[in-house]
Formats: sequence, structure tokens, C-alpha cells
Amino acid sequence: MIRANENYQKLKASYLFSDIARRVDQFQKENPDIRVIRLGIGDVTRALPPAVVTAFHKGVDDMADDATFRGYGPEQGYAFLREKIAAHDYQARGADISADEIFVSDGAKCDTGNFQELFAKDIKIAIPDPVYPVYLDTNVMAGRTGEFVDGRYKDIVYLDCIKENRFLPQLPETPVDLIYLCFPNNPTGTCASKADLTQWVDYARKNHALILFDAAYESFIRDVSLPRSIYEIDGAGEVAVEFRSFSKTAGFTGTRCGFTVVPKECRVFLNNGETVSLHGLWNRRQSTKFNGVSYPVQKAAEAVYTREGQAQIGELTAGYLENADIIGKTMVDLGFDYVGGDNSPYIWVDGQGRDSWDFFDLLLHKAGVVCTPGGGFGRCGSPYIRISAFNSRENVVDAMMRMKEALK
Amino acid sequence: MIRANENYQKLKASYLFSDIARRVDQFQKENPDIRVIRLGIGDVTRALPPAVVTAFHKGVDDMADDATFRGYGPEQGYAFLREKIAAHDYQARGADISADEIFVSDGAKCDTGNFQELFAKDIKIAIPDPVYPVYLDTNVMAGRTGEFVDGRYKDIVYLDCIKENRFLPQLPETPVDLIYLCFPNNPTGTCASKADLTQWVDYARKNHALILFDAAYESFIRDVSLPRSIYEIDGAGEVAVEFRSFSKTAGFTGTRCGFTVVPKECRVFLNNGETVSLHGLWNRRQSTKFNGVSYPVQKAAEAVYTREGQAQIGELTAGYLENADIIGKTMVDLGFDYVGGDNSPYIWVDGQGRDSWDFFDLLLHKAGVVCTPGGGFGRCGSPYIRISAFNSRENVVDAMMRMKEALK
Repeated sequence: MIRANENYQKLKASYLFSDIARRVDQFQKENPDIRVIRLGIGDVTRALPPAVVTAFHKGVDDMADDATFRGYGPEQGYAFLREKIAAHDYQARGADISADEIFVSDGAKCDTGNFQELFAKDIKIAIPDPVYPVYLDTNVMAGRTGEFVDGRYKDIVYLDCIKENRFLPQLPETPVDLIYLCFPNNPTGTCASKADLTQWVDYARKNHALILFDAAYESFIRDVSLPRSIYEIDGAGEVAVEFRSFSKTAGFTGTRCGFTVVPKECRVFLNNGETVSLHGLWNRRQSTKFNGVSYPVQKAAEAVYTREGQAQIGELTAGYLENADIIGKTMVDLGFDYVGGDNSPYIWVDGQGRDSWDFFDLLLHKAGVVCTPGGGFGRCGSPYIRISAFNSRENVVDAMMRMKEALK
Repeated sequence: MIRANENYQKLKASYLFSDIARRVDQFQKENPDIRVIRLGIGDVTRALPPAVVTAFHKGVDDMADDATFRGYGPEQGYAFLREKIAAHDYQARGADISADEIFVSDGAKCDTGNFQELFAKDIKIAIPDPVYPVYLDTNVMAGRTGEFVDGRYKDIVYLDCIKENRFLPQLPETPVDLIYLCFPNNPTGTCASKADLTQWVDYARKNHALILFDAAYESFIRDVSLPRSIYEIDGAGEVAVEFRSFSKTAGFTGTRCGFTVVPKECRVFLNNGETVSLHGLWNRRQSTKFNGVSYPVQKAAEAVYTREGQAQIGELTAGYLENADIIGKTMVDLGFDYVGGDNSPYIWVDGQGRDSWDFFDLLLHKAGVVCTPGGGFGRCGSPYIRISAFNSRENVVDAMMRMKEALK
């Protein structure tokens, strides 16, 4: 008799963004004349940069001719892309990461979701609250979280990110083996300083723990004192894996390319006390279950590292940061406390006592604006909403005017 | 302390095709003047069809303009592609599959590898021998196979495919819950008749088992009496999932697109005796761990279903089948028994008592031709080699001349 993975039954009824889509669809059906403005899901809206488009076409042309056609590529990604990533994103910033420590993938969601497969079933996991739902849900599916009781999975160590700690996760009081961190943070938009990250790296080294560091939003950092990679912290290569994406950096949410850095010095333990290379485990996982990223997409991603590409993505992220600034100023005008938005495309707004789904419904129904209810990211998010800067200038300006009108 | 998934330690040292690549690299290093001809890994070599290239470029152009730009797409794939697949590949052949039962992915390797996540840890699995290594290895990683003893994992029910049963898996003698089948078969190139598949569907229905049916090579079937989908068999929708790929059909090995069919009527059991929808489980898995296929790639795949696309992929597969015919005739001339090659791009050659790795080395060293040693696909494959028809006509003709010379 074919039996299901029972852990799926422990998942909450649906994925956050599907819930939102359902409510928005319903509203739109009832109010077909209202033009809804979406500042909810963190999806980019501006076209791929011209340098990327040119390289993408060139990659397609290569596939159109027997002489330049590419079949199966390396599961780890083409060297032409891995070398550019290592040189530009790491070595140029003093982080000692080599091309063969980079694994190109079809996006950070897949990698952050799949990476937990490499670990034992009974490790102890620390996850911030609020948090991007994928870290938690994929561990629920794998059977590491226990039952959902009073709004939380009982085997997870939650790291509360609240006003009192400036929305920064604090070291856990009980020992943990695996720690998920994300900076600039999704959903709160907060950033970690070098001192903040050093504290985590030191903790991991001392406790033989591992950090899964999600840096999908690093290209929004403008403050030069802030680290853009965890490998800017001494010793991090021994205890940290880093996930990145071209999604938000270069508008690749629909084009699909990201990468994961697994340093060769990073080791994990076997039951017999010996250690094995984490790089070897991930390499085996990817070789067995993945077949590499589309060649033209990798050519497109490579163009991000040209001089033109860099200038163009700089403009792209600057445009979104200006949107964030407009949103932040509107929150000040409306008298709302918020964090984020300066080195991040997300603004985390205190709802002044409102439950986040109520606030979501209010903005949808009174302003036709879609945000993301903080409660969807965890219990600590319930008093907040996340507003995303990913939309056109016109839409952001319009949405802010509507919010001022609705909340005055 | 961060502990590893110990199941990875049960895997054999390396993935078959990495082993082959290593031996070929070594040979090439020692013999830089010999032009090695690769008939090993089943990788296509001919350019994408013109209709696909045109649509691919058009998809890239859509991404170049804010007005037509696409961000996150549906995790399940765009309706424009799912509808074409359902209509053309299923409904037109009398199989009652609807668009929302199709899940577009970045390839059949990922899907056949990931699908096992949906099931309990202690189900009993039947896997043919020889077999595409991904089915087995991904279950090893998930801890379902037990230890590797005397060349086999002790908890797997192996379905021997040998000369005596025309290389067709026979119904297991002990009850099993999950069955992997692949037709046209990789590696043997054999096909299953409707009667063969009916026997499996009946078994699955009677025993509440599930069939994972890999149809990645269906486009090579020319014999109109052979089923191209398991859903051509009555009742299969209740007990079978089907995997397909554009890789071999339309030259997408480096472009990456495939799909999985999960009929809504297909149900799996919970421990409490209730059933859940398998479609719902896979939908949840894909929504949580996957972010959809690159939009321009889906546009490219859609073009496979245009009239021009169909004519062009027909030529493409016909060309490879002619190669297979040339290889088959050479085997006859050389006095080797073989199967496959008529409705399949693979030829499975009996090595006349040679061990498959010895035969592999002999062909590499004496003819500069790369095949795949059958032993890499399982114990029953040890007396055989697989020769692939995926190469240019010139290379296939040249390789066959070299083999005649080397083996005369």
C-alpha cells in the first residue's frame, strides 16, 4: 500500500503567497473597476537589463547551431559563470571563495529548500521569527519540526525578532546545530553589522553548528560598513553556507538563476565522530537530483558581471531603493513606526495594534493596495505588515497616495 | 553538533557518468591526438529546432520590456504550455489528462529524483535492474534502501531485466508499494506493449501500489501499436505518475524543460487509513521548493507543439533513429546480440562474456569510442554495454567503422 509522507499533514493549510493571491482575486472579482497595486510578494517588475538581454539572445543563438550547441552542462554550473561570481562577489571583497565552491542553481528558493536534505533527521534547528516560510516548511516536510502546537512547531528553536532586539535574532539559550539567517532580512528589511555576524560565526565555531546564510538581497546594501557576504567574517568559511540569487539583483525572478556557496573547509559530523566534506555532500546531491541551469540563462547571468551589466543593475536596485524611500517617508507622514527600506527593498511597518491580516484586508479594501501580512512570516510578525518596493515608481507613488487617503 | 544525513555514506563512490568522464579524460590526456567519439551519455548533439529558437528569442524579448516582462511565474508552469501538453500529448491520444494535472519542471531528472519525497520512509520499492541510476540513488539518500550488500541494497526489490524475460521487468513475488518503470527503456532500449503495461496497472490497482512511469523517450516510438503514455491503459490514472522531458524530444538537454503528470484521481494512504490526493502533495512540494521554469524556456517548449515544431522534432528524432539503425546493423555484422534501437535511441549490446567495464575500456582504447558500461546501471547490466544514437551521422558512421576495425 503506497503511504504518504505524513509530515506534509503538519504543514499549515497553504503557502502564504497563495493565501494572499486568493484574497486579492476575490477582491478583484467583487471590484473589477479598482486597479489593485501589488506591493506584496517581493517580485520585481522592471525589464531585464539590456546587457543581460543581449547575452541571453546570444546564448539562444549558440543553441541554434550544431557547432555551438550545448547539451548537458555541468550540474554545478558553467565555469564561465562560477569564475565571475567568485572573482566579483567574493575575492574582490576579500572573501577567499574559489569558483569550484560556487554551485549555480535555478534559484535560492530551491537551494534553501533542498539544502536541509544533507543533514540528519534529529538535528536541532534555529529559525528566526518572522521568517521566509521556505526554511520552516521544508523542515516540516522532512520531519524535523514535530507537531504544530499553539502556533509553533515544538521541536524548532525560534529566534524572536522583535522591536526590543531591533529585529535581530539573538543567540539561542539551548544548543542548536543548524541556524538559518537572512540579511538584508526578508521580511523585516533589517541588516546585520559585522559585529552581529561575528557573534553568530563565533557561536557556530564554538558549538560545531552550521549557518545557512541567505544573502538574496545583498545588492541592496548601500552602507559600506555592512557586510554583503558572511565570508567577510573571519572563520565563516568553516561554518557557513551562503545562498544568493540574481532574482532581486538583476530582475531574474522569472528567468531563474541563483547560486550557493559551499566552502571546501566546511565539514559536518558523522555518528562515528568522523567528519565529511559538506561540499562533497552538496555536490553529490546536485549531481544526482539536478541537471544544471539552462545554458542561455547562465550566459544571461554572466552579463551581470560586465561593466555595462554592473551599471545597469546598479540603476535597477537604486530605482527600487528610491521607491523604498518614498514608502518610508509616507509611513513617517502617517505616523507609523517602521524598519528596513534603507539597505533593503522591504519596509516592515508596525500596525499600531492591528492584527496583520486585518491590516492587509483594510489596505486591500480601502486602498486597493496589496501588502504582505507579517503574521504569515511567523507569530512575531503578527503586529506588522511588509511593504515591498518592487513596483514601478508610478505605482508606488499612487499606492502611497491611496494609503494616505485611506488611513488619514 | 551539525550531523550529516548518514544515508549518503551508503551511496556507491560516484555517479556513473562522472566515472566515465574521468576515464575518458584520462585517456584523452594520454592520447591527445585521438578524436574520441562519444556514444555514451545520452546527450543530444543537434541544434534546437528553428521554431523553438524563434520562440525562445521572442520569450527573451518579452523580458526586455517592462510592459511584457514576467516575474515569478506559476510554480506549476504557465497555462499556455500546460494546455498544449495536455491537448497534444494526452487528449489527442485518448488519455484523459487535463492541463492542471501537468507540472512543468526543469527536467525529468529532478522530478524523478524529487518525487520520492512524497512517500513514507518505510514503503517497499521495486526498481528494475538495469536502471537509470537516479531512481535508486535518490532513495538511498532518503534512507529507504538499507545497506549495500553483495552489490545490492537489501531493502529494494530488484526486477531483473534479462535476456530470458526479453529485458522486461516481471511482477514482483513479494508485495511492493512503489514501482519505477521506464519505457522506451533507458538503458536497454526495449519497449512495453499495451499488454505489458496493463499487467502493471492491474497489479498496482489490486495492491494499492503506485507506478512512477518514466516516458522521457516516448517520442522515439514509431510502432503505432506501442503505448506512448501509461495513461493509454485503462485505470492508469488512479495508480500512475508519468515523467516526460523535452530533452530527447526536442534537444533540450542544455535548455532544461520537462514535465510530470499527476492525475487528480491518484490517491495515497495515510497511517490512519484515510487517503490524500497525490496531486495535492506534489503541488505543495513544488510550491514550497521550486519556483517554476524560466519563462523564455517555457515559450521555447511551447513551440514544440506548433506545426513547424512538430515537423522539426520529427526530423530530429528520425535522424537519431537512423543512427540507431546504423549501429544495430553494425552489431549484426560484428555478430553481437542486441536489443533496442528500433523505437528507442539506445542499443543494448551483449558483450559475449566480457565484463561491461572491460568492454568499455576496450572500445575506448582500441576505437576511441565511448559507450556506457551496462554494469553502471545495475548487476544485471554487467554483461552488456549501452550504445547511444545521440551524435551526428558522421560521428556514428565513423565510430561504427572504428568498432569494426577494433573488433574484427
